[in-house]
Amino acid sequence: MIGGEALVRSLVASGVEVVFANPGTSEMHFVATLDAVPEMRGVLALFEGAATGAADGYARMTGSPAAVLLHLGPGLGNGLANLHNARRSRAPVVAIVGDHATYHQQYDAPLESDIETVARNVSTWIRRSARAEDAGVDAADAVAAAHGPPGQIATLILPADVSWSEGGSVAPPAQPRARTAVRSAALDEAASALRSGERVVLLLGGSSLRERGMRAASRIARATGADVLSETFPARVERGAGIPVIERLAYLAEMASGQLDGARHLITVDTKSPVSFFAYPGRPSDLVPEGCEVLMLAGGADDAIAALEALAAEVAPEAESSPRSDPPRPEQPSGELSAESIARAIGALLPEGAVVSDEANTSGTFLPMFTAGAPRHDWLTLTGGSIGQGLPVALGAAIACPDRPVLALDADGSALYTLQSLWTMAREGLDVTTIIFSNRRYAILRMELARVGATASGRRALEMLDISPPEIDFVALAGGFGVPATRPDSADSFVADLERAFAEPGPHLIEAVIPSLF
Amino acid sequence: MIGGEALVRSLVASGVEVVFANPGTSEMHFVATLDAVPEMRGVLALFEGAATGAADGYARMTGSPAAVLLHLGPGLGNGLANLHNARRSRAPVVAIVGDHATYHQQYDAPLESDIETVARNVSTWIRRSARAEDAGVDAADAVAAAHGPPGQIATLILPADVSWSEGGSVAPPAQPRARTAVRSAALDEAASALRSGERVVLLLGGSSLRERGMRAASRIARATGADVLSETFPARVERGAGIPVIERLAYLAEMASGQLDGARHLITVDTKSPVSFFAYPGRPSDLVPEGCEVLMLAGGADDAIAALEALAAEVAPEAESSPRSDPPRPEQPSGELSAESIARAIGALLPEGAVVSDEANTSGTFLPMFTAGAPRHDWLTLTGGSIGQGLPVALGAAIACPDRPVLALDADGSALYTLQSLWTMAREGLDVTTIIFSNRRYAILRMELARVGATASGRRALEMLDISPPEIDFVALAGGFGVPATRPDSADSFVADLERAFAEPGPHLIEAVIPSLF
Repeated sequence: MIGGEALVRSLVASGVEVVFANPGTSEMHFVATLDAVPEMRGVLALFEGAATGAADGYARMTGSPAAVLLHLGPGLGNGLANLHNARRSRAPVVAIVGDHATYHQQYDAPLESDIETVARNVSTWIRRSARAEDAGVDAADAVAAAHGPPGQIATLILPADVSWSEGGSVAPPAQPRARTAVRSAALDEAASALRSGERVVLLLGGSSLRERGMRAASRIARATGADVLSETFPARVERGAGIPVIERLAYLAEMASGQLDGARHLITVDTKSPVSFFAYPGRPSDLVPEGCEVLMLAGGADDAIAALEALAAEVAPEAESSPRSDPPRPEQPSGELSAESIARAIGALLPEGAVVSDEANTSGTFLPMFTAGAPRHDWLTLTGGSIGQGLPVALGAAIACPDRPVLALDADGSALYTLQSLWTMAREGLDVTTIIFSNRRYAILRMELARVGATASGRRALEMLDISPPEIDFVALAGGFGVPATRPDSADSFVADLERAFAEPGPHLIEAVIPSLF
Repeated sequence: MIGGEALVRSLVASGVEVVFANPGTSEMHFVATLDAVPEMRGVLALFEGAATGAADGYARMTGSPAAVLLHLGPGLGNGLANLHNARRSRAPVVAIVGDHATYHQQYDAPLESDIETVARNVSTWIRRSARAEDAGVDAADAVAAAHGPPGQIATLILPADVSWSEGGSVAPPAQPRARTAVRSAALDEAASALRSGERVVLLLGGSSLRERGMRAASRIARATGADVLSETFPARVERGAGIPVIERLAYLAEMASGQLDGARHLITVDTKSPVSFFAYPGRPSDLVPEGCEVLMLAGGADDAIAALEALAAEVAPEAESSPRSDPPRPEQPSGELSAESIARAIGALLPEGAVVSDEANTSGTFLPMFTAGAPRHDWLTLTGGSIGQGLPVALGAAIACPDRPVLALDADGSALYTLQSLWTMAREGLDVTTIIFSNRRYAILRMELARVGATASGRRALEMLDISPPEIDFVALAGGFGVPATRPDSADSFVADLERAFAEPGPHLIEAVIPSLF
């Protein structure tokens, strides 16, 4: 068996069933194996950032890694931004980067470059397969490493001759590490803080933002008066009817400081102590209020839900976990199309079981409020701050969850980094509805320009923040990639388009041209 | 003066007049400076790969660096593939990568990552500006480093607080290094080889592929019987009527071996000894024939043209340098639209002074032959092998040469990596005609699949090489970005569309749906 086949079969043996691929010549033996190994599904992307973001979305929804197949250093570079986001999601991803044959590297052929140095930006686990005999074990180790916990990007560099040489064999799965059990000292400290009578904020993140974790947190809050917040950009939150509503820590540092004001104890659960997204002149980076102690109940490798349940059993043995009432669903909006009316329409129409990939940025301001009362759904956010993640994550989530409707909410500027994702949605017939919030500018930069104190904002500076003229026609772009699209001119026609998109199978796109909030 | 302004003014003082930008929050002070410093032209890109490729094209045509402005590690990642190509072009480029404020980095905010490790893939000159006081000198040093020779990517990391703090001052230009003069030992060795009576191949690359260098090489060939070849993927070749026609070393190793067969002396001029682009099982990577000695007449830092002229003065004092006759221009084609008829049409219609960015890949097979007799033009190729370079390089060349028509020849698969370039062409009103060779597949991978010996090519493997279904509609995509486009259905209508595109100002796109050669 050649190394490439051993690798693919070992990935399958370790539970990897999908490869998001943008291959080149050095990956041809991997590709050729797909016919012999039907258990591995190849999903082609036209750009590597679509593939890596899709692996992130897939992992968020399944908890298991997909593979991505990339072509040497430049292919990894093209995929790097969404691997950065996946790193922040703590999503398990196996990145297979094809390389020149081992003996060819010395010749510094045009595509030769230092792959490892790029990989180090996103991966602590990096291995270069040395021989066909090793490829199977390397694949199994990569999958185990990717699982963590916490999940991470495992990068396996695969020279072409390792792939094409005989001598490979299928490796059994490596044993992934289990999540660490609750530490009693941390439990005791947290319980003591909750009994102190001082203001306590419980900050949930990562793996804790599932129904069970949030129910436990809700019991603690009800019994002790603590406040519960979610990290600002969670990889995945279960939301909707019957699940406790948990407010997110605000993106804007000044608003986040308000949420945390007066807290004397901040208990983190699978998330970091809160910091400002960017630095701003004269403002603190660390958002923890002065005099507030930070306690880590559970870290990224811990069983965060068990920790929350143990803490709830300790401090809130009798408390109810379900909300007293769900927030109401909004009425279907009418009149002007705007960020607010779109949020109302989504809140009114979101189907049961939807997966929402949210990269609406400034235009998404009203979404959390109006969707809190929708039926059960999952909400996936921009974890690493690198825009261009929304469409790929939706694509990956749709591959992961073929029976669930997927809604991609994307700002116009953000969508344009990885718009090629639409084509893969069309090719695979995925049930993804994309809404483009088209305000014709990098609105967040309009906002940030003033916040960082750059006040000299004349015409030439503002031109760098406006993505019009020319106006970008997303209906044409979507059509070019095989996705049917509309551009409603009112909230009423938006509602009709959204209903139709949810009702029909396959991908749809709605371009919503709206006033910018900034 | 704040550091950001000192940096921009110092770039200008060092001759940098254009910044291709895709900025974020950490770059807002750089952006805000554009109004105060009108000598710096900001050109917005919707994706970083368009910006970095544009800087490559700009540098190839001007010999001077443009700056690119990128947003932290992920922004550099998105721009990395075309920086890789620019590195192979030995194009001078100043990459300014904004970073978090120095004191903010410790908090590991979402966008924090190791920027240097990514930069090392493309840059040997990397500096992190430490204080506003240093920003000006850092900028001047970056420009000097970028110039080389040979040209290179100089990466300057600019923390936000360095940019916004007072204390900066404008730095004078740093002195760039001069090209090294001809080495007499190398001249003597080359002259001796040329007088040996054995077969000699003169392999030209880099800075030598200008009219003067090729005329000198042509004299040498005429006087001594040596053969002259160009490297396979030159950054820029002057071509067309009156300039000696120089054949390129073939991409396919087996064809290149044929071109070099029997050579006993290979004289390299600002290029490397030839190697196979990829490794193939059982075939040599090193293309130098057995028993052939390799002599370096000039390296990347040397004055290659002076070396060729000195060699010509030595071995061919009397020889003519101009071609005896120019190749004929083809007739305008008629009938079926194909890779061949398109090449004939381009050969027939290419305007005087055109700049051609060639990423036609397999569909470009017939281009060198049919365009050799066209009026004077420059030909820019895919230097680093990372597809997605053609449109950005055309964009940058058009900014560099506003009075020259630019022709971008792009394969469909390649164009889709950086299609956002079309929008910048429309915004800036650039006179770029783009031809998409739309064969609906990664044809080169179809060819390579068999060449690497991956014979098990069933349906599932071939699906990874086909970019249809769904068929991509480039007319719609171009329209979506504001570029008028057509899809001619015959060679005749292609000719009409190409004539109109050349005649009208501003960008145009022609989608040529053609049979694949592979």
